[in-house]
Amino acid sequence: MPLWRVFIFASVALNVAALPLLLHQYIVNQPHHPGVVSPDQQRHACAPQPGTSGAAARAPSTGKPSVTSDSVINLDHGDPTMFEAFWRETGDAAELVIPGWQTMSYFSDVGNVCWFMEPLFDQQVRRLHRTVGNAAVDGYHVLVGTGSTQLFMAALYALSPADADQPTSVVSTAPYYSSYPAVTDFLRSGLFRWAGDANSFVGDSYIELVCSPNNPDGAIRDAVLSSGAGKAVHDLAYYWPQYTPITRRADHDIMLFTVSKSTGHAGTRIGWALVKDREVARRMTKVRGLNTIGVSKDSQLRAAKVLGAVSDGYDVGGGGASRHRLFDFGRRKMVERWRMLREAAAASGIFSLPEETSGRCNFANETAANNPAFAWLRCDREDVEDCAGFLRGHKILTRSGNQFGADPRYVRVSMLDRDDAYDIFISRLASLK
Amino acid sequence: MPLWRVFIFASVALNVAALPLLLHQYIVNQPHHPGVVSPDQQRHACAPQPGTSGAAARAPSTGKPSVTSDSVINLDHGDPTMFEAFWRETGDAAELVIPGWQTMSYFSDVGNVCWFMEPLFDQQVRRLHRTVGNAAVDGYHVLVGTGSTQLFMAALYALSPADADQPTSVVSTAPYYSSYPAVTDFLRSGLFRWAGDANSFVGDSYIELVCSPNNPDGAIRDAVLSSGAGKAVHDLAYYWPQYTPITRRADHDIMLFTVSKSTGHAGTRIGWALVKDREVARRMTKVRGLNTIGVSKDSQLRAAKVLGAVSDGYDVGGGGASRHRLFDFGRRKMVERWRMLREAAAASGIFSLPEETSGRCNFANETAANNPAFAWLRCDREDVEDCAGFLRGHKILTRSGNQFGADPRYVRVSMLDRDDAYDIFISRLASLK
Repeated sequence: MPLWRVFIFASVALNVAALPLLLHQYIVNQPHHPGVVSPDQQRHACAPQPGTSGAAARAPSTGKPSVTSDSVINLDHGDPTMFEAFWRETGDAAELVIPGWQTMSYFSDVGNVCWFMEPLFDQQVRRLHRTVGNAAVDGYHVLVGTGSTQLFMAALYALSPADADQPTSVVSTAPYYSSYPAVTDFLRSGLFRWAGDANSFVGDSYIELVCSPNNPDGAIRDAVLSSGAGKAVHDLAYYWPQYTPITRRADHDIMLFTVSKSTGHAGTRIGWALVKDREVARRMTKVRGLNTIGVSKDSQLRAAKVLGAVSDGYDVGGGGASRHRLFDFGRRKMVERWRMLREAAAASGIFSLPEETSGRCNFANETAANNPAFAWLRCDREDVEDCAGFLRGHKILTRSGNQFGADPRYVRVSMLDRDDAYDIFISRLASLK
Repeated sequence: MPLWRVFIFASVALNVAALPLLLHQYIVNQPHHPGVVSPDQQRHACAPQPGTSGAAARAPSTGKPSVTSDSVINLDHGDPTMFEAFWRETGDAAELVIPGWQTMSYFSDVGNVCWFMEPLFDQQVRRLHRTVGNAAVDGYHVLVGTGSTQLFMAALYALSPADADQPTSVVSTAPYYSSYPAVTDFLRSGLFRWAGDANSFVGDSYIELVCSPNNPDGAIRDAVLSSGAGKAVHDLAYYWPQYTPITRRADHDIMLFTVSKSTGHAGTRIGWALVKDREVARRMTKVRGLNTIGVSKDSQLRAAKVLGAVSDGYDVGGGGASRHRLFDFGRRKMVERWRMLREAAAASGIFSLPEETSGRCNFANETAANNPAFAWLRCDREDVEDCAGFLRGHKILTRSGNQFGADPRYVRVSMLDRDDAYDIFISRLASLK
């Protein structure tokens, strides 16, 4: 064998050997959510890249690499790539074309409180909520944000009195979404401060975050605190028919939504808030103006296109109902995945899951089960106190319960990854004893 | 005349009468920059919109409404719509097509410190800097942000010691960009705090913001402070050949850029940082992760396309140089507009402008003048102490010098608006005595 062949062989072999290690390191060290990148990870990953070309760089990204039966399976984040299969089927229904000269201005709608919001986006948000019946829109302001996380921070700003001596306490019932404490506290704001579990909070002045269905455990929730001086922010990211029965038209003061979980377009980073009060809407707009001087118009237009395609699927009255129905696809997948998961947990014998609940879904006009976007999995083996560590040992990456203010015997598992990764997860889980 | 005709006539007349008033109210009350929307403005503008359809809402936005010789001319913001004319000429060279299923994941590049950055964007940023020669890229991390404002906040976070007793002082030489104090202080962070003019700062530990060419006055600047514990952030948003001669390849520790000012795509909200230090890059990435969980991939792909089209215009070596050359267009426009402005100021007799400076431009390979994106205009009339107020009385909206830590006899005027608005501004200015 000539020397160059030996070289190439050795090089390829080394790369293959190094890949799982790198991937493992990358994924394991992500403590909170996509936003929190650990130092270990950086050390491997962040060498400056002097090259400007290379075939790999010439195409848009595809997300996490594909997996095989030996791969580390990363279900730590709620990366909603399950929905790709649906959108591939829709052809050009949700395709966006942006000419080079379009939407160059900072301004979208100089007459609106959200002067940077595309009118098309506003229109399609209202249309979809009317189609699904999950939230009231009449009398509400629609505000667009770079993901619902930015809107959550904007709501904290808007609801915290500017003249208070002390930062306003921010609370949520445990287990609570792991981003809430991190986003609240990372800039050490003098306006608001994380104060933990709502159930143990004492005081009159607070902001309660109510996530329903709840991240991480899928529970249907109401606010637990009530006082004249307290405020609630309702995070309804998962209140869509693929995850839960739509039992009522929500009409809270501030409601947050995101395309990440409704349609699966996480990379588009578009969220929206429905806000009743004009002054609150104004203050929330100020934050997004200062923080990022508005929100990407390209993504607003894409979100409008995608939301419009979803509504088109159910536009029976308009005669234009398409055969592509996102919520039907989503519910079918979620029912199937939850069935697989419950079977795998039973086969294994060492895991337990929240009991299945159901309700009358006004959208589907039938009784439907709650099929949460995350599984809140408990490891029942006496000798396992750290379920995330135990699963990591079996190359399954999840988020530990202690990041949600809960017992580390619990983990949160994303149910929204691609089929290949989900199937490997299921068979691996079933084999654990 | 039948009654219905009278009605229609009265209705149209009322609308026409109300329009300038509304527009004036909207624009006048915007004190800082697009992000700060005043209460007065809201009162007019933010009635919830119950309607979901209507022809007006079916197209992407076009920015501010077009103007006539009687209009209020808003040159308060640096809205870079001047560049639309260039991009309209380029046909589909910068057109972006995004299929419905593309870039749905949170992740773009799991092996990079910026796990949410599209490799295409990284590649085109490096290519353009190499083409222009305005900044070093080898050995630098490219970080993408939702506008350079978010990156500026990320830099403050990254450079502020987490364990300090006191917030780090943030300073800049006056006149400084009006957003710097606002963005630094709006969340009352315990990590950093605005401390005003760098020239009057006393202490060792600080973050100095160096904007060059400077917003608002176009001056070429270097850091004025130096100490072992101090850090500098270089905002090079305007260091492009249409505005200033490229005299050297900048190689500072942290350099900020944005497509808003380089190509005119403000609505895309994409900025980038070139960062030398790995740990700083890591901490800056953490902020953008927490704040918005990454950056719109649609806009990253659009920015990549646009930056690529700019480089293509000058790709002589590759044989593919197109006839569309952004910097040639931009310089031609800026030279012409500055000539018009100086003539108008001379015709009026009551205004003065910074003296013209020039230098050897390595990019154009000739001597070129500094043609700033903003004019720093001084009203010399003895009885005018508030130049912005004086101009507002003549339906020209500018930003007062006092928002930049300077004398209110000065105003900042955007030089980047569309031709029609700019021409009206010039003729109106020339007539003021």
